[in-house]
Parts: sequence; structure tokens; C-alpha cells
Amino acid sequence: MPWSAQRRAVRRWELTAGAWVPQAHQQQRAQQRAERALEREQRELDRELREQHREQLLHQQQQQQQQQQQQQGRECRSASLQSICRAPIASLDCMEEFSGAEHAGGAGGAGAAPPTKEQLLTGQLTAAGAPGGQALGPGALASRQSSVTPGLRYRNLGKSGLRVSNVGLGTWVTFAGGVSEEQAEEVVRLAYDSGINVFDLSEAHSGPRAELELGRILQRRAWKRASYIVTTKVYWNTKSDERGLSRKHLIESVKASLARLQLGYIDVVIVHKADPMCPMEEVVRAMNHVICMGWAMYWGTARWSPVEVMEAYTNCRQFNCVTPICEQAEYHMFCREKTELYMPELYNKIGVGLMAWSPLTMGLVSGRLEDGMPLFSRSSFKNKYSSFSWTEDETANKEDKLRDIAQLAEKLGCSVAQLAIAWGLKNESVQCLLLGAATVDQLYESIQSLQLVPKLNSSTMSELERILDNKPTRPPMVSTLALR
Amino acid sequence: MPWSAQRRAVRRWELTAGAWVPQAHQQQRAQQRAERALEREQRELDRELREQHREQLLHQQQQQQQQQQQQQGRECRSASLQSICRAPIASLDCMEEFSGAEHAGGAGGAGAAPPTKEQLLTGQLTAAGAPGGQALGPGALASRQSSVTPGLRYRNLGKSGLRVSNVGLGTWVTFAGGVSEEQAEEVVRLAYDSGINVFDLSEAHSGPRAELELGRILQRRAWKRASYIVTTKVYWNTKSDERGLSRKHLIESVKASLARLQLGYIDVVIVHKADPMCPMEEVVRAMNHVICMGWAMYWGTARWSPVEVMEAYTNCRQFNCVTPICEQAEYHMFCREKTELYMPELYNKIGVGLMAWSPLTMGLVSGRLEDGMPLFSRSSFKNKYSSFSWTEDETANKEDKLRDIAQLAEKLGCSVAQLAIAWGLKNESVQCLLLGAATVDQLYESIQSLQLVPKLNSSTMSELERILDNKPTRPPMVSTLALR
Amino acid sequence: MPWSAQRRAVRRWELTAGAWVPQAHQQQRAQQRAERALEREQRELDRELREQHREQLLHQQQQQQQQQQQQQGRECRSASLQSICRAPIASLDCMEEFSGAEHAGGAGGAGAAPPTKEQLLTGQLTAAGAPGGQALGPGALASRQSSVTPGLRYRNLGKSGLRVSNVGLGTWVTFAGGVSEEQAEEVVRLAYDSGINVFDLSEAHSGPRAELELGRILQRRAWKRASYIVTTKVYWNTKSDERGLSRKHLIESVKASLARLQLGYIDVVIVHKADPMCPMEEVVRAMNHVICMGWAMYWGTARWSPVEVMEAYTNCRQFNCVTPICEQAEYHMFCREKTELYMPELYNKIGVGLMAWSPLTMGLVSGRLEDGMPLFSRSSFKNKYSSFSWTEDETANKEDKLRDIAQLAEKLGCSVAQLAIAWGLKNESVQCLLLGAATVDQLYESIQSLQLVPKLNSSTMSELERILDNKPTRPPMVSTLALR
Amino acid sequence: MPWSAQRRAVRRWELTAGAWVPQAHQQQRAQQRAERALEREQRELDRELREQHREQLLHQQQQQQQQQQQQQGRECRSASLQSICRAPIASLDCMEEFSGAEHAGGAGGAGAAPPTKEQLLTGQLTAAGAPGGQALGPGALASRQSSVTPGLRYRNLGKSGLRVSNVGLGTWVTFAGGVSEEQAEEVVRLAYDSGINVFDLSEAHSGPRAELELGRILQRRAWKRASYIVTTKVYWNTKSDERGLSRKHLIESVKASLARLQLGYIDVVIVHKADPMCPMEEVVRAMNHVICMGWAMYWGTARWSPVEVMEAYTNCRQFNCVTPICEQAEYHMFCREKTELYMPELYNKIGVGLMAWSPLTMGLVSGRLEDGMPLFSRSSFKNKYSSFSWTEDETANKEDKLRDIAQLAEKLGCSVAQLAIAWGLKNESVQCLLLGAATVDQLYESIQSLQLVPKLNSSTMSELERILDNKPTRPPMVSTLALR
Repeated sequence: MPWSAQRRAVRRWELTAGAWVPQAHQQQRAQQRAERALEREQRELDRELREQHREQLLHQQQQQQQQQQQQQGRECRSASLQSICRAPIASLDCMEEFSGAEHAGGAGGAGAAPPTKEQLLTGQLTAAGAPGGQALGPGALASRQSSVTPGLRYRNLGKSGLRVSNVGLGTWVTFAGGVSEEQAEEVVRLAYDSGINVFDLSEAHSGPRAELELGRILQRRAWKRASYIVTTKVYWNTKSDERGLSRKHLIESVKASLARLQLGYIDVVIVHKADPMCPMEEVVRAMNHVICMGWAMYWGTARWSPVEVMEAYTNCRQFNCVTPICEQAEYHMFCREKTELYMPELYNKIGVGLMAWSPLTMGLVSGRLEDGMPLFSRSSFKNKYSSFSWTEDETANKEDKLRDIAQLAEKLGCSVAQLAIAWGLKNESVQCLLLGAATVDQLYESIQSLQLVPKLNSSTMSELERILDNKPTRPPMVSTLALR
Repeated sequence: MPWSAQRRAVRRWELTAGAWVPQAHQQQRAQQRAERALEREQRELDRELREQHREQLLHQQQQQQQQQQQQQGRECRSASLQSICRAPIASLDCMEEFSGAEHAGGAGGAGAAPPTKEQLLTGQLTAAGAPGGQALGPGALASRQSSVTPGLRYRNLGKSGLRVSNVGLGTWVTFAGGVSEEQAEEVVRLAYDSGINVFDLSEAHSGPRAELELGRILQRRAWKRASYIVTTKVYWNTKSDERGLSRKHLIESVKASLARLQLGYIDVVIVHKADPMCPMEEVVRAMNHVICMGWAMYWGTARWSPVEVMEAYTNCRQFNCVTPICEQAEYHMFCREKTELYMPELYNKIGVGLMAWSPLTMGLVSGRLEDGMPLFSRSSFKNKYSSFSWTEDETANKEDKLRDIAQLAEKLGCSVAQLAIAWGLKNESVQCLLLGAATVDQLYESIQSLQLVPKLNSSTMSELERILDNKPTRPPMVSTLALR
Repeated sequence: MPWSAQRRAVRRWELTAGAWVPQAHQQQRAQQRAERALEREQRELDRELREQHREQLLHQQQQQQQQQQQQQGRECRSASLQSICRAPIASLDCMEEFSGAEHAGGAGGAGAAPPTKEQLLTGQLTAAGAPGGQALGPGALASRQSSVTPGLRYRNLGKSGLRVSNVGLGTWVTFAGGVSEEQAEEVVRLAYDSGINVFDLSEAHSGPRAELELGRILQRRAWKRASYIVTTKVYWNTKSDERGLSRKHLIESVKASLARLQLGYIDVVIVHKADPMCPMEEVVRAMNHVICMGWAMYWGTARWSPVEVMEAYTNCRQFNCVTPICEQAEYHMFCREKTELYMPELYNKIGVGLMAWSPLTMGLVSGRLEDGMPLFSRSSFKNKYSSFSWTEDETANKEDKLRDIAQLAEKLGCSVAQLAIAWGLKNESVQCLLLGAATVDQLYESIQSLQLVPKLNSSTMSELERILDNKPTRPPMVSTLALR
Repeated sequence: MPWSAQRRAVRRWELTAGAWVPQAHQQQRAQQRAERALEREQRELDRELREQHREQLLHQQQQQQQQQQQQQGRECRSASLQSICRAPIASLDCMEEFSGAEHAGGAGGAGAAPPTKEQLLTGQLTAAGAPGGQALGPGALASRQSSVTPGLRYRNLGKSGLRVSNVGLGTWVTFAGGVSEEQAEEVVRLAYDSGINVFDLSEAHSGPRAELELGRILQRRAWKRASYIVTTKVYWNTKSDERGLSRKHLIESVKASLARLQLGYIDVVIVHKADPMCPMEEVVRAMNHVICMGWAMYWGTARWSPVEVMEAYTNCRQFNCVTPICEQAEYHMFCREKTELYMPELYNKIGVGLMAWSPLTMGLVSGRLEDGMPLFSRSSFKNKYSSFSWTEDETANKEDKLRDIAQLAEKLGCSVAQLAIAWGLKNESVQCLLLGAATVDQLYESIQSLQLVPKLNSSTMSELERILDNKPTRPPMVSTLALR
């Protein structure tokens, strides 16, 4: 063993010995260790991936035989994701995303090209539901498509281990009135085929219908449970019988959602709005109970203030409960403060990630230049949909700005909606941006925004920033001494 | 963003940063933060409610279509409660109640007037049991009546998230001997139709029959589980096989109650009397187990001394168990010390609320002037029912006082019983006052006391205080130094 | 015991005392509070009991009607236990027992006299199994006999809330070879009818047969589950597949016992012998798991040294697990050190109580004067049964002593065995003394010892102590300074 | 109470009060106490075992009768393990193994000689599946063979209570392609008959097929669940849908394994590779959940670095979760650093034991001198199987070394593979060395290595060490002061 290797070993063990410290210091050290361990892990992972690929090829023949017996006629998903992680979890850097697209053509065993629009829209890529499949075999469930939409990536939601696609399907309008169940199923199918693995439900907007329909779709499609993530909400208002976030309501709500969805568990239960009348201890204990019972894997929040999220985290730590992994917040060009100023801090300090939605990405409006103006104007959505938002920039003259944005979109050859989506995806704090659509065309249009993101170079972003003129900033620190 | 908004943001984040403190200081800070956050939350909630109402109207049409299909012929409960909370949970102030009545005529979408006595007594307002209802749909269960009795309010029980009506049905006499099951069902129905959501059972007095009958009634009525709260007791005495509050007895008792009630869970399991022979650790661990198993949502105590409640709380904290949310205590004009001197302290310090009962409100006696005297005299109930009370004023000359109270009741145009109930409701520490009745008329009479409360102005209260002359006070603090 | 052994014992206890790690100051305070609350509680309990009795009479008529319908022909158990507790759980005094006998003739509603020997032996007092009983009604299960054997008392086991009769049935010989199942059932029935509520099983000695047979007997008898306590053991030896106290073995053993017993839970799971190869953390976590799963209510130990019991307790506190409530130990005239010197300290400090057994009380031998000698002599049982005992006095000349004891028994008009049992019961540290019997006559004889206890006055005890001449004492404290 | 007794009581309580020591000191004291208690325990255990043997003989007759009825024709396992433990768990010494062989001929009641090769290979020793066995009786399940392979011993895995055979069956090649299910069953049967109680599965290499087949074999064989240990892995890679060690994936993976194995629980769930993107808290909480749900008894890791194992342990302590008990690592003559330098420290500090595998012991290659060279050469296995290893000595000139090793093997009269296995078993840190085989002959050959271990005396080991010339050493400590 050469000297340098010995030195590394010594260093490693000095670190280890140093880890026998009180809990308070642990996190700092863990981070240091993680950073130092990074280099080595990186090398090993690289080697491993190369090896795994070779091994994969060796084992492929026998596996193919097996699978052919079990799932005759279905395609196997091969090697869609090949990039590797470069940052440890405890790092303050944003976590590296897992890119599906950049390797899609290069390394995949099947070498599948991105599917054409026609393939996606007509659903030629997904296997039909597994008739008479063998219950336990892995091939009994339909595998994910091997091909992934360009620009789609997978990232850990918050500092959890759950990997979500950078766009998700928000079903706000998919299961709304006027959309047939067949149409909704097509939208869900397109999302899944495109590589989207997040399906977000919101009782507040679509009522229990969304859960019932999505449940039936998932039953019919019989996709492998590991291949998708269902997030749904515990909703309350002061008008209903439930009257707030009591343990009673939280538990009943989750159990009812499970029954409607016909699922064994919900991936992330999102608590919609904090209830100032309910002690935080009760909420975090109830969510911990929900997770301990196996009804959910994770929990998160929606429309909570950073202070409330922090309070939840503190209570979790105090009572040894599982901490929330994400906050769902509104984010668009005219609602930036929470996402841009406060969410990165929550992510870095307590690992709470961000799922973002905006009236636009939710598919509520979709248009090009000519209808760009009404899109962002107060009358069309501000009062109706954005009213719950935590904070919103109300001082700007939106009319003028919208005109300029529409011109920029035209210059880029995209719709205003697509520009807005790409702009949202550009923000690294947004781990999953929820898109919504009532039709497959609408969703397809939105997904194309993924390819727009690389085009948003620094000059375009500067131009946009200049137009918006609402970049949130923190006020200068004022010494509290000076205030005395 | 104007300067003031920036300042607010800074303040908010200073607070957030300050929250990274050891657990010990957390609660104080949480309170401060909560108080400061109050103003903002209040404004937002106001706006939200206005918005929700508008949104509600937009979505109503499609929802109505849905519901009409699912629950043909049933009324939907709309907007019974509209006031909002003004105090955060951690505040030392008493929590704001949710008033049903004051908005009943004004804001409700359906604009339903309070039901007439005839409507209530004949049960025209409740839907019949749901025949062949769809299991998962929300409309499959009968919704609460939209109209609420004037004066009825909903308040959080203790500092929990559970919202209870300010009067509850104590079933002491409802399921006692001599009352038929049909009669009992009518009483329960009237209570529910009046907006009462608390049904309290007491094995000690009515035996297992109460649970069996209430269980059958709830099955027949098929009310939505979220719309009512069942509290029942773990009872023990030294004569029975159980011989005390052992874990064995607590768990067996809860499971037996669940089986009799045919419910999935009990809302609040009340531990009746502390057992000085059983360590508190065993009790709180067993109650935590009961809650973890999903058999109960909360737990509370009955007839425990403040010291015992505090000991339970301390043990919960020590062993990371769920804390009790309420104490059930006797409270009437001649039994005031515990409720008036000690319960507010327990509420403020450890969040334990109060459900109160008295021989009168439990419907044991009901009469006007002429039978007012025997009502409170020793012979009629003191020995028989009040004997367990934690502390009772025995020094006063009750005969004289009763005469004066009866005269006052006559002056107010109500019965002595109604005056006694209204007097109990006047105390803000009483979050839920248990009423009892063997007949619907008796219950209806008692509920009317809610309207008497506002009439108990300060001069009337002073008059009553003068008559009673038993306002409990704490003795002056005596320096222990002086005792040496 | 030689001096060096005494020294080692002292050292061991110094260490133990030093290792005492309570989580907070809470226990001291709890004790102070408890002592102050004592006086008031006492008064209230006295009053309450008087009142309950009166109330009981009022409610009796309707209850009797109910019960007559449900359990025609069965007697109801009334008021067998009426004494009340006088010491709080945290007190250093031994806890007061609940005496059945002294009130049996006086206060019982039915005024039942103690049953005659004939009644007990022929089983006229117990109802037959409940055919077609109503599952939920309390009367569906056969109630305990109202009459209790004179001298039988109920005491809390350790500082738990579980109340056990001061004698229990150790089934060592009941389910041994040569005893038919009918005969065994008769013994179990007699024990139950006599008021004994503890049935102890020991896989080590009778194998799985005991659990299977007792399970069938309990099924047939259909006694109310609350009215008896089943304790069984997790046994291991190095010869079996299990190879020690692994979590795997503990959990499998408990599940297998439950299946054999056909019970929903075991009252106390006793871990037989500590395994020095298995970390204590694993044992206490596994026992906590067993209790959390609802398979057991409590756990205890058998044949553990005081140091091991203390270590288990410390681990429970460290990992927030449920603490053990009792130790089963051998105790007889020639094996006194552990029970007399160390168990009281364990009880006072960590609430671990004592179930005692000895070859005599287990019914292995039963005889009068003529066979008194072989009874205690080495040849008859020492090697065979007592060999596992933690510590035993081996220095005394047993032959001479036995002769004198037999003469004393003759003087008292009882058998040597009865004297030995009464002598064991005289020790307040023994909360439950396990008796064993292969026949009803043998058990009846043993139970009669209860009446002998009051006759063991101080002069008789002095006489016995003089004969035995083996009163264990702690060696004088030696300053460790002096040893330097 | 005399003065001296009072004084002693006071002293005891002074100690108690004074001993408010933090948890940190507890373990030290526990160890001291354990060491002092050792001597006594040892004596008692010795005596107990002698007694138990005698007792065993007494009870044997009746047990034999029972068993003859229940399991006609099956042999009972008697007394395979008789050595006793000499070191307490907290000791830093390696734990004593439980030897099967050295007593096999001497003390066994049945006096069974080790089975011949023919007996083992033809499976004459195991009973066929229990047809119509009685569900609860212990004899309803086929007992382990009474005879144990010479050299086979049982040791606690890590500092857990789980006792594993020092060799286990790694099913890497047993369930690989080309091996029929009948052939695989024969290998499993031979392993079980030889006394091996560990069966290790690895999804990474054999896919779900291994679990399905082993599950069916265990069903058919109906061996007593206590008599074998199944370890399986949670596998992940970045190519699959699961995308890492999320709680979602951990739980789904364990549930899927249970379903495939048709078992009630997995003995040890091994987490394969750490996921630097998933927070350790999530992993340890998920594994704790898996254990709390009863799906697994223990958990461990595979291919984790010592720093990662230590981080897992620290997180377990922080969140009061069950700690991992073992790490699975590659260990062979050319991969020594992790096992020899770091695993003993992990074992001593945090009780994490070692299951080792190497391409050789996994049965991938099996040959004598002539094929010794390719065996260890890069081309044959290095790239293909060892690529994941944590660290490997790459500097040595393997070709020359292999030639010398082959000569040594020839001198010892064994194959190179057997020498390699014996060399691995010689290391006390390896509590279980996984052997693999595609055929019974291959396994039989490997098992014979157990008898080679005693022949590896110090001179042979020195010779080997001289040939290998790669003994890992820690670099000298360098003062960090000197580096400034």
C-alpha cells in the first residue's frame, strides 16, 4: 500500500474517531466527513457504473429469457438514467439532478430514441394492463418506458431519498368538470410515458373525484408501484365538519384518500394550510402516526409560511417524529419572494424541498402572444386562483411587463406559457414543477418547455429580469443595537 | 417592494433564525413568534375566507350535480361556521370560539334559518340512514344539518385541534333504566340536529348498555364519522375483577368499548379516577398505546386532581407519550373551586381543557321555581350523585341561597335549571358543558339555555355572586421562611 | 456464606447503587407530591367507597334483571374486595394488600360465606362454560366466584397496576406427566374458585404441553379474561436451535405461546435466565416490541441476578422501553439471601416485584412429620430442582434443623409443607407465592396455609429463626479508604 | 430497625441520589459490572449445564413418548452444542464461539457420529416434509439434524443475540442460471444438514429468482423456522425505477422479498451499498420501521465504508432506532484492508459484526493446483465480481504469489480454494463466511475446509503471510501539530 493510500486511511479513521461527539456537533462533522468522502465515492461510483453496465450485459441474456416467459410482448426499461450524483446530501450545494435525456441516446442498451410526438400522444409506448400477470414476479407489472423526454431529470425531493421528475402532473384541471375520464386517463398516460413520475392531487380544487379517477386509472394501467409517486393533500376549511387540522381529521382524511385511490400507501401526504388553532405537536405526531402505520411514505406541507415549516421541523425534532420533506408553493414571474428568498434557506437548513405550481403551469391558461396579456392580468387568474399565495408582488405594473414578455416569447419561438414554465424550471430550488393539463395536447405543449430551459441563457434571463423588475431581495441587515 | 414590507420580511427571518435554539427555550419563542405572526395570519385568513366563498360559488354547480347523483334528496351542509380564529394556540388567552349562530342568518349560502322547535323535535331535519350508499363517496354519509342552534359554538378542546360544541350530550340518564331505545335515539338525534357534536358515555353510571345502544343508533343514522365525537370512559373500582388502572384493564376496557360501539375509533378515551396504586408511567404508556393502535384519537381524565393531571403530563413528556387533552369535572354553583381556580392554570400551562358536568346539566332534575329548593339540597342529589366531586363548598347555607336563585330565575323568565346551565356556560374555562336528558323536551329546554348566556350581564352575574357568596379564592401566599 | 462471598455481594451492590441513573428529579418530586396528596385521597376514597356501595344497591335491581337474562343460573360476584389502598405507589413502604377474606362475611351483598371444602373440591361454585353466550355483553363470560378463601389477598405485582392474588398456581407439576387433563382442569378450577388469579407456566419444566392444556381449559371454562392472569416464560438453553435470548427467539417464543394458549395476549412474559451473550438492549427492545404489538401486557424475569435486573431497567430507561415488573425467584427456608436482602431494594428502587417459588410450594413434595426430613434433604430435591437457584445457604446442617421444624409444625397442627408455605407468605416482599399441585387435595392443603399465616406470631417466627440460624445479613460496610 | 441498618439504608440512598450520572458513563460502568459478574456467572452456568443434562435425561422418557406420537420416524436433535460462553457481550475480546464439533462424539445423548459424506450427499439424514403435522406442537416441524460437521461453530453475529454458523450458504451461484431447482434444493439441504443455519440471498446477482426458489424449498422442507436464518438484500441502482435508498424503496423491497420468500419475517435485511444522495436518517428510520412492523428481526449493511456504518450507528442512537448488526464485505487474500484493519474496531466500538464473501468462497471457481493461477488472476474474476469491493490491494504481483500458494496447498493436501476458505475462517473477525456452490459436491468440498483451519498453525500462517506480503497496517500516527 503506497504512502498516500495509507495517509488517506489514517485521515478517514481520524474522522471516524472524531465522530464520537455529542449529538449537537454531529451534523457539522457529518458534513465535513461527507465532503471529504465525496472524492473517493465519486471515483468508486464511476467505476461501479462502468462495471455494472458490463455485468448487466452478461446477465441480460438469461434475464431476457425469464422476462420473455413472464411478460411476453412487453418492453423492458433499460438504462434510462445514467448520470450519477456528485454532491453528498449534507452539502449546502443544490443536489445534482439525475438527467435522463443526456444519456438517452448514448448509453442505453436498447439505444431508444426519444419517442415522437405521435407515439406519445397515441400511447403506443405503454404496455396494456397486465392480464393474469404473476403476482410476485417483477415482470408482472408493466415497466416504465425506456425512453425519456429530453430535458426531463430526476432529483431528490428535499433532502429525502425520494427521486422525483423535475416536472410533475398537477391534476387540478385534469380531473375538473368537463374533462371525461377517458380524456383524463390519456393525460395521465402521456405524463407517465414522458417520464413524469409525480402525480399531484388536490382535494381543495377537484374534490374527491380526482382521487377516485386516478385510482381507477392506476388500477387499469397496472404500472409498477415503484415507478410513480402519488402526492395528495389533507384539506380543511372552517366551513366543513372537520374544522381544522385535528389528529382526527388528518387520520380520517388520509384513510379516505387511500380508500379512494385504492393504493397501499400514498407517497407524500401534503398538509394543506397550517391551522393556527391546532398545536404543531398534534400535527407532527399525527403525520408520524400516518407514516408509522404505513399509510404514507413521507409528508410535506402546502401554503405554509417558512416560520410554520420551521416550527413543524422543530416539533418533529423535539418529539422524534419524521420531518416533512417538501413545501408546495405558488411560483411564477409575479410571485417570487417565498421561493427565491426563503425556500433555499429551508432546503439548506432543514432539508425541506419545493414543489412549485402556478396558475400557468397548472394548465389553467394556455396561449400565445395574443392571449398573453389576460393571462397574467388580475382579472383572469389573480383573484380566482392566486389568492391563497403566501406573498405576491402587487406593486408592479403588470400590463406593460406582460407585453414585453410576450415579445420575448415570440422572439424565442415559444408561447408565453412555455416561457413561463421554462423560467420556473430554471430555478434550481424548484425540485418539481407541477404542470397541469386538461388535454394531451396541452400537456405535450407544456412538456416541450423542458427543451427551452437550456436556451434561457444569461442574456435572456437578464432581459427577463429587466422586464420584470421585481427580483426579490433581502433588506439590509439593521443592527438591533442601532434601534435602541 | 416597499420598505415596510421589507422590514416585515426581515423581522420574520430574524425570528426564524432565532428559532435555532435548544428545546428548552423553544416554547417561549414559539409563543412570541406566534403572537407576532398573528397579525399577518389574521389578514390572510380574512382574505382567504372571502376568496374561498367566491370560489365555492364557482365550484358549486358542478359539485351540486355530483351530489345530486350521489345523495338524492339529502341536504348539504353549507357554511355553518364562518367566524375565524384570532388567537394562536400557544397564547395564554382563552381560545376564540367558533360561533355558528351569529352568522347563521347572515352569511350562509343557503341562508338557512334556525330550525323551529317542531322541526327539531320531530326530526324533519335529519336525513334517514343512507340505504345502499356508495362506500367511498363523501356523499354516501348523511351530512350534518346546515342550521345550528343559536348560541352554539365550536371551540378547541384543550389546546388540541379537536373542535367541540360548547354543549355536549352526556348520556348518563339517556341510556338509564326506564328510557326506551327509541326515546334515547330521539334524544341523540335532537342533539345532533341542534349542532351538538359531543356524545359522552359513562360506564360508571349507565353500564355497557349506553355504548351498545349509542353504537346501534350511530349505525342506523349513518352520520359522517367526522361530524360527531364520541367520548367514553375507562371505569374501574376496587370491587371488580379489574382492580384498578392496570395496562391490562385500560386496554381491555377500550377494546370492549370499541366492540360495543361498533366504531373504528373512540374520539377521546377518558380515564375515570386516578389509581394511586398504579404508577402514572403505566397509565400514560397504555393510553399512548391505545392511540398508537388507532383505537382512540385523544385521551383525557375525569375526576383527577390538578396534581394528578400535572403528574400525567409530566410522565407523558418524560416518556414521549401523547398528552391528555381534557379533564372532566363537576361544576355547578356549589362546586366551583377546581374549575375556577385550578383548571385555567392547567389549560394555560399544559393545554388540558375542561368538559364539565353537574347533576343539573346532566338532566337529573329539571324544574322551575317550585322544585328549585330540593334541586340543590343535600337530600336530592348531594349524597347520591355529587359525592365523588373533587371539592365542594359545604359551608354555605344552601337553603337560603336557593330561594334567592329561584327568584332571580323567575325574574329572567327561565327555570332554575336553565339559569344553572347558562351560568356554567358563562365560564370561559368550560369548553364543553355536558347536558343530559331522558326526553327530547328535557334536552330542548336545556339547549335553550344557550340563548340565556348573553343575558347574564355583569349586573346579573354580580347579583348571583352576591347570592352564592362562595367565590373561590386562593389563600394568601405564606412565606415558608415565616413558618420556621 | 463465607466472608469473601459477603464482601463480593457488598461490592456488587455498591456498584449497583452507583449505577442508578434516574432520568430526572421527577421521581423524588413525584414521591413528595404523592405523600402530600395521600391524606386527601385517603379521605375521598373512604367516602367514595361508602357511596359506591349505596349506589351499587340502587343499580343492583336493574343489573340483576339484565344478568338474569344473560347468564341464567350463574352467580354474580359481589364485593369481594373492599379494603382500600393506603400507600401511594412511590412510597418506600410495602404496598397494602387488598384483603378478600376479612370482609367476605361482612360487606358482601350476597353475604356469601367462604365455601366449604366440599363445595370447592366438587366445583359446585363455578358455572359451566357459557354456551352460546353473547359475545360483547359482560355477562356473557362466567364471573368470578363471589367467595374468596380466607387469607387470600390481592396486591400490585411490583409497582405495576396489575393486581395478583398472594398465592398463584404454578403449573410445574399440574401439567407434568402422569396427571390427566381432567385432573389438571380440576386443579385449575379449584385455584380459580379459591380466588387465585395467577396461573404460571414454565416451558422449562413441563414443555409446551402445559400451554396447550391450559389454553384448552381456559377455552372450555370461558372465564372473563379480566379475571385471570397468565404468566409464561421465554425459555432457552444452549442445546436448542434457539441458542439464546435473541430477538428472533424472544418473538418466536411469545408468538408460539400465544398460539398454544389460544389467547389474545399473555399477561406477563417472563424471560427465563439472562443470556450473557445477548446484549441487554436487544432483550429490552424485543420485550418492548412484544408489548407494543399487544402480545403481552407486561414482562418480567426469572432467575436473573439483581445486577442483571438493574441492567435491564437501565437499558429500558435509556431506550424508552417498558420496564420489567417482576422477578421470579426461588425462596424457601434454606434459600433466603436473594429474596430477603436484595429484592426489597429492587422493589423500592425500580419497582420490580417478586413472584416466589420453592420446590415445596410447587407441590413437588407434600407430607407431614414423618416425611419432613427427606423433604428438605439434599437427596430429595436439592439436586433435582433447586440447582438453578441464584444463591443458597449450604453451610447449615439441614438434618438437625428439619427435625426441629417438623416438631414445630406438629405443635402448630399443620404439615411441614404448610408451615413452609405460610413462612414464605409471611415475607412482605413476596407479592405472589406460586403453589403447585397435581391433585385438588394437594392444592387445597396448600391453600389452607393462608390461614396459618396469622398464627406465625413473633415468638413462633423467632423460634423458627433460631432453628434455621441462617438469617441473611449484609456485611458491615468497609471503608474503601481503609483498603488502600 | 437498628441504628446500623438505618445507617446502611441512608448510605444506600445517598449513593442513589449522588449517582446522577449522564448516560455516557453508563456503558463503562455496565462493562465493569459485567466483568465482575463474569466469574460468578461462569460457575453457575457450568453447574447449570451439568444439572440440565441430568434433568434432560429424566424428562427424556416422557418427551420421547410424546415425540414418537407426533413425529414418527424423525430423529430428534440432541445436544449438538455444549460449550458455553465465557465472555460478556460488552467485553472487547472477541466472543467465544459455540463449538458443535468438539462435543459431538462425547456428550450427545444420542452419541451421533458425524455423518458420512454419502449420508450427507444423499440426504438420508433429513426428514421429509411433515405431512399433516400438528400446527402448534414443536415436533410438527422437522428438527435439525443432530450431527454437525466437524469444525462448524455458532457465534453471535456482531454483538447481537443471533447465533450464526461460522460458514453460511451464499446463494449467488446456487440460484444462478443453469442450475435446476432440484439441484439447488440439494445444495440447500446439504448446507442445512451440515449444520449451516445462514442462507444469504442477493438480488443484485441472482435477481428475484433466488428468493422465489429458496421460498419454495423452505416451504417443502418445513424446517422449524427457528433453525435457519435468511438474510436478503435491499438492492438499488441508478438505472432502476427505484433510483436509490428511499424509504419508499426500502419498504417496498422488503415487502416484495417477504412475498417471494413466503416467510413471516426475514432474519437480517441487508442494505446493499449506501446511497450518498439519501440522508442516513431516512435509511435508519426505514429499517427501524421494517423491524417494528415485524418484517425483519435485524438489519445490516453490505459494501458500506466504515465511516458510513459509523454514521448509520450514530443516526440510530440519535433517533432511538435499532442499530445494524453486521456488514457484509469482500474478504480474500488480496482484499484484506477493510476486514483486517477496520472491522474489528467497528465490532468492538459499535457491535457491528462481519459476514464475509469472496469470489472463491462463493463457489464461483473451484480447482486445484493447475487452475489456481487463473483463479486469482484479474481476467477470471477481478473485473467481473470484485469490482465493487471497498478497497483492494492492487500493487502485488499476483502471478508469482499464486504459484507459491498453490504449492503450499498441495503440501497441505488441499485445493487452493479450500486453503483460501480456511484462511478466511482463521480470522476471528469473520463471524460468518459465505460459501457458495452450484452442486452438492462443490459445497461438500468447501465445507471440508473447516477441518483445515486447525492445521493452519502459526508457521503455515507465517509462510502464507510471507508469500502474500500484503498484510495491511495502519500508518504511523502523525502529530497534527507537526503538520502545522
